[in-house]
Amino acid sequence: MRRSIATVSLSGSLADKLTAIGGAGFDGVEIFENDLLVSGLSPEDVRRRAADLGLAIELYQPFRDFEAVPPDTLADGLRRAEHKFAVMERLGVTRMLVCSSVSRAAIDDDALAAEQLWLLAERAAEHGIRIAYEALAWGRHVSDYFHAWKIVRMADHPNLGVCLDSFHILARDVDPYAIRTIPGEKIFFLQLADAPSLPMDVLYWSRHYRCFPGQGDLDVAGLVAHVLRTGYDGPLSLEVFNDIFRQAASMRTAQDAMRSLIALEEQVGLRMGRTVTSLSSPPPPVVPTGFAFAEVAAPSMGALGTLLDALGFARTGAHSGKPVELWEQGAARVLVNSGSTESPDGPALGAIGLESPDPAASVKRAEALLSPVLPRMRGPHDAPLDAVAAPDGTEVFFCRTARPDHPSWIDDFSEDRRSAGSAGEITHIDHVALTQPWHHFDEASLFYRSVLGLRPHESLELPDPYGLMRSRAVSTEDGAVRVALNVANVSAYDGSHDLAWQHIAFASRDIVATARRFRAAGASMLSIPENYYDDLVARYDLGPERHRLLRELNLLYDRDEQGEFLHFYTGTTGRVFFEIVQRIGGYRGYGAVNAPVRLAAQHVRPRHRSD
Amino acid sequence: MRRSIATVSLSGSLADKLTAIGGAGFDGVEIFENDLLVSGLSPEDVRRRAADLGLAIELYQPFRDFEAVPPDTLADGLRRAEHKFAVMERLGVTRMLVCSSVSRAAIDDDALAAEQLWLLAERAAEHGIRIAYEALAWGRHVSDYFHAWKIVRMADHPNLGVCLDSFHILARDVDPYAIRTIPGEKIFFLQLADAPSLPMDVLYWSRHYRCFPGQGDLDVAGLVAHVLRTGYDGPLSLEVFNDIFRQAASMRTAQDAMRSLIALEEQVGLRMGRTVTSLSSPPPPVVPTGFAFAEVAAPSMGALGTLLDALGFARTGAHSGKPVELWEQGAARVLVNSGSTESPDGPALGAIGLESPDPAASVKRAEALLSPVLPRMRGPHDAPLDAVAAPDGTEVFFCRTARPDHPSWIDDFSEDRRSAGSAGEITHIDHVALTQPWHHFDEASLFYRSVLGLRPHESLELPDPYGLMRSRAVSTEDGAVRVALNVANVSAYDGSHDLAWQHIAFASRDIVATARRFRAAGASMLSIPENYYDDLVARYDLGPERHRLLRELNLLYDRDEQGEFLHFYTGTTGRVFFEIVQRIGGYRGYGAVNAPVRLAAQHVRPRHRSD
Repeated sequence: MRRSIATVSLSGSLADKLTAIGGAGFDGVEIFENDLLVSGLSPEDVRRRAADLGLAIELYQPFRDFEAVPPDTLADGLRRAEHKFAVMERLGVTRMLVCSSVSRAAIDDDALAAEQLWLLAERAAEHGIRIAYEALAWGRHVSDYFHAWKIVRMADHPNLGVCLDSFHILARDVDPYAIRTIPGEKIFFLQLADAPSLPMDVLYWSRHYRCFPGQGDLDVAGLVAHVLRTGYDGPLSLEVFNDIFRQAASMRTAQDAMRSLIALEEQVGLRMGRTVTSLSSPPPPVVPTGFAFAEVAAPSMGALGTLLDALGFARTGAHSGKPVELWEQGAARVLVNSGSTESPDGPALGAIGLESPDPAASVKRAEALLSPVLPRMRGPHDAPLDAVAAPDGTEVFFCRTARPDHPSWIDDFSEDRRSAGSAGEITHIDHVALTQPWHHFDEASLFYRSVLGLRPHESLELPDPYGLMRSRAVSTEDGAVRVALNVANVSAYDGSHDLAWQHIAFASRDIVATARRFRAAGASMLSIPENYYDDLVARYDLGPERHRLLRELNLLYDRDEQGEFLHFYTGTTGRVFFEIVQRIGGYRGYGAVNAPVRLAAQHVRPRHRSD
Repeated sequence: MRRSIATVSLSGSLADKLTAIGGAGFDGVEIFENDLLVSGLSPEDVRRRAADLGLAIELYQPFRDFEAVPPDTLADGLRRAEHKFAVMERLGVTRMLVCSSVSRAAIDDDALAAEQLWLLAERAAEHGIRIAYEALAWGRHVSDYFHAWKIVRMADHPNLGVCLDSFHILARDVDPYAIRTIPGEKIFFLQLADAPSLPMDVLYWSRHYRCFPGQGDLDVAGLVAHVLRTGYDGPLSLEVFNDIFRQAASMRTAQDAMRSLIALEEQVGLRMGRTVTSLSSPPPPVVPTGFAFAEVAAPSMGALGTLLDALGFARTGAHSGKPVELWEQGAARVLVNSGSTESPDGPALGAIGLESPDPAASVKRAEALLSPVLPRMRGPHDAPLDAVAAPDGTEVFFCRTARPDHPSWIDDFSEDRRSAGSAGEITHIDHVALTQPWHHFDEASLFYRSVLGLRPHESLELPDPYGLMRSRAVSTEDGAVRVALNVANVSAYDGSHDLAWQHIAFASRDIVATARRFRAAGASMLSIPENYYDDLVARYDLGPERHRLLRELNLLYDRDEQGEFLHFYTGTTGRVFFEIVQRIGGYRGYGAVNAPVRLAAQHVRPRHRSD
């Protein structure tokens, strides 16, 4: 399939947008009229630049409020159209989007709409131009695709067809199945956008919250499958209005858009049994089976070592060629890298290692989805170990730890790693939580979903004392790998709060013992207010002994239908802290209900603010 | 009236919130439960702090999902309530908010709801506590105040009354008139919030977009008038959930909140003919009659002088005691102050002078609305001239220029001001446009409305190449004073774009002559793309000669039902540029349709971005 994107989806000048779109490997582009109007580039300049970048100009859009209007308005519309046809000829584009009228002057008369669109198509034909008629979800009289198709059928002009837009159809819950009844050659264009479920008016939602397919909650792949079954052979073209993409760097957004299309085509192919061979089919995702390690960049051990030690971790090895230490407890492994340049914020979580059934295949999948392998320094005897960069900069390694069929990264560590056994209760890494830059949240969600095959969970909003934190977990079906993605809309107003905290959550088989051990070692535990425990007594009757224990050990509590969740937090060093969790029964969450307590407690320790 | 505010309306820790609320002069506070739960302060600590700050704790809130539930859930609810009553006794608060059930377990049975609320009230009475029952707009079975009042009447318990909330009532368009039928002593509490008209689900709207009365579009004053007519004598209490206030500095938000209440009380008093004498009545607004001047802080004249000169301004005087020059043309006056410390961005608009019929009364009004007079250096012979600070830091002076009844600031300038007459076409300042910090936009809108008596116009969203600009004008009825408030949600992602541009728009009686004069002087004019003019031809048939003239002179064009609007822009120096406008007929707008063209053109000149 040809891949295209509307210029309105990206930030910057029209020249910037074209460069970014070409750079990301698109085949074509929709020129959004306003982007041309405000540009110093002439239509001929745009045509030349697009050609130089290998981009076909697929569509000129939008032409508004043309059809089903009184006769005098029609004359004005035809006059406007002639001017636009002239611009289109200069651009070298032969397809124009006409969207259904929103004007109060529009008349509810399909025959009139058909007649006037016929006139427009007839004029367009003289210029070799085709008209793609689209039902806006908020059109005055025409607001669903089947209505638009009815009018196109009535008009019956070879230069008139429909434009389908996944947002306009799916946002109003219109059933896309009837698309199959439209002949493919009468579908002149296909625009694609996704959106998160948000309870608001469809126009407002459309203008601010559209996103790329796979980043939201609409079944875009299902719709595309219907369209392709008609024989449609035009481009798949992204058209996204999004407040954040408007501000983000265009090169990066264009790449994110391309990744979304590749993943979408794969989804569509799976739906259709790959009957459309022109769809991309990257190598299938290799779902990770667990965490191999988490790596913290820390110029000196200091507080980090104290925390790990108090949790029952033992230093079990040192890398043979790099200043990296290995700490272990059960299957939980933490690498402490003192060779990286010091971050101004102190220790930071720099990498995670994921257990892969086939690391080479994991890498191929990532590369096909535009996440290239990071260049690395490897010693002559080091085991091969490849990493890709997640959108927030975290390095994701694909590992196969201590399996006979594959060299293991752990063999690069000195022999003394077996010497110090640990008697602690921690068994493995339960999850890692990564704070995302606010403008990379949707990109991150798509990365983990498409590159690693993780499943996104519900998006939550958690109150922080200085704003709202948005949080979304992604995980494997069995929970072996869980990543919590957070974005903090917090106190940007004075720049004094940097909340890019990251944490590693360890699973303990006996959190009470772990907490007692930690406390006995005199290490810094996050203190939970008494008021929390008073409220817990009001909410749950757990028996006095259990309530006393929770309070004594600063343990937080949650439950769902499947089970219970106990957790506590260590103090923070740099950007990093640790959480210890115990899942009892089949509890599936992350204790989100307790996040406000944790966030408020974490604000108590840093510098006091002056308003 | 006693004035109160819910802790949830402000950012920070509970201690920070109480300090800010006390500092802003409130009489009382609602304790939002979650703020207590996450706080390290014990209920006794909170009680003591509030008392030290002179704050009564008016309400403990919210208690959820209590009424109209199955019997086993009722027992659990009563158990929860007893725990909360204990906390309330420690806090020393005797009023609890119970909001209508949202749980799916709730039963649609008013008699059951009444019976269970009676039981709760009976238990509460044992602790000297009263229950204020509130209909949430999204309550499962009880979602309007009259329904809640019906249940309270059925229960008929002295410790049970209703809580009214302006948002829950007005957001759902429930008629508040029937409030008058509720006896005042059965209205146990009154919560107030406003909100801008936004097309979304009421719960989502409530959680993110509430604002203080006078900042949105709801008729809060009308509702309060109905409530006061019942004899209600409890506090007026603000309860606002707002994504921006959550992040803003709490001291400032608390002051903004207090200003809002003072202005609200005045509005209510006007509605009721001041029958409630406990309502505040600040001195009435003194509506300004025009601009006296605009002052630009510019360490050296440079580009600024070149622009003013090319526009036909003449330097007509110098201040007798300060490094300030006066430039004049018609009634348009610009002060250039070279005595201020250099801003890193170069010249900036620092102050505006407004013509006031009574400067002393203007000052009294501002002080009553918490905008204190700024301390100023005044020479022994200088005319008295007082200024207050607008929320974005702009100083607003109250002037009475060259009237025999009042000393005039202009007399502080040297005599040569009369020497250089100007032959230009500029007649006066049409408007000034001020870019607001994003977290002060609502505050600014309330400031201009309440302090200066200006009328807010529709809020607009304008696309910038790197984001969306929100814009709202405020003006006098006759348009003699117009201020455009802009907030730029633009490219915060890399900090490279500072769009805090400000501009002064001068009215010309012959914009073609002004543009020719300006061009002949060789000064820098904002260049408008050819594509804009091609589109203008498509949109309007103005005749070839007029189209040619617009294109030649970089003039932008707009029209409305009343008339036409022509305008052009100068180049930018520092944060400042000038606009020249000509209003033909009764055109009332600001050419907002052309703002995207202007913004894109302004981005062409600064540093080129690299993504």
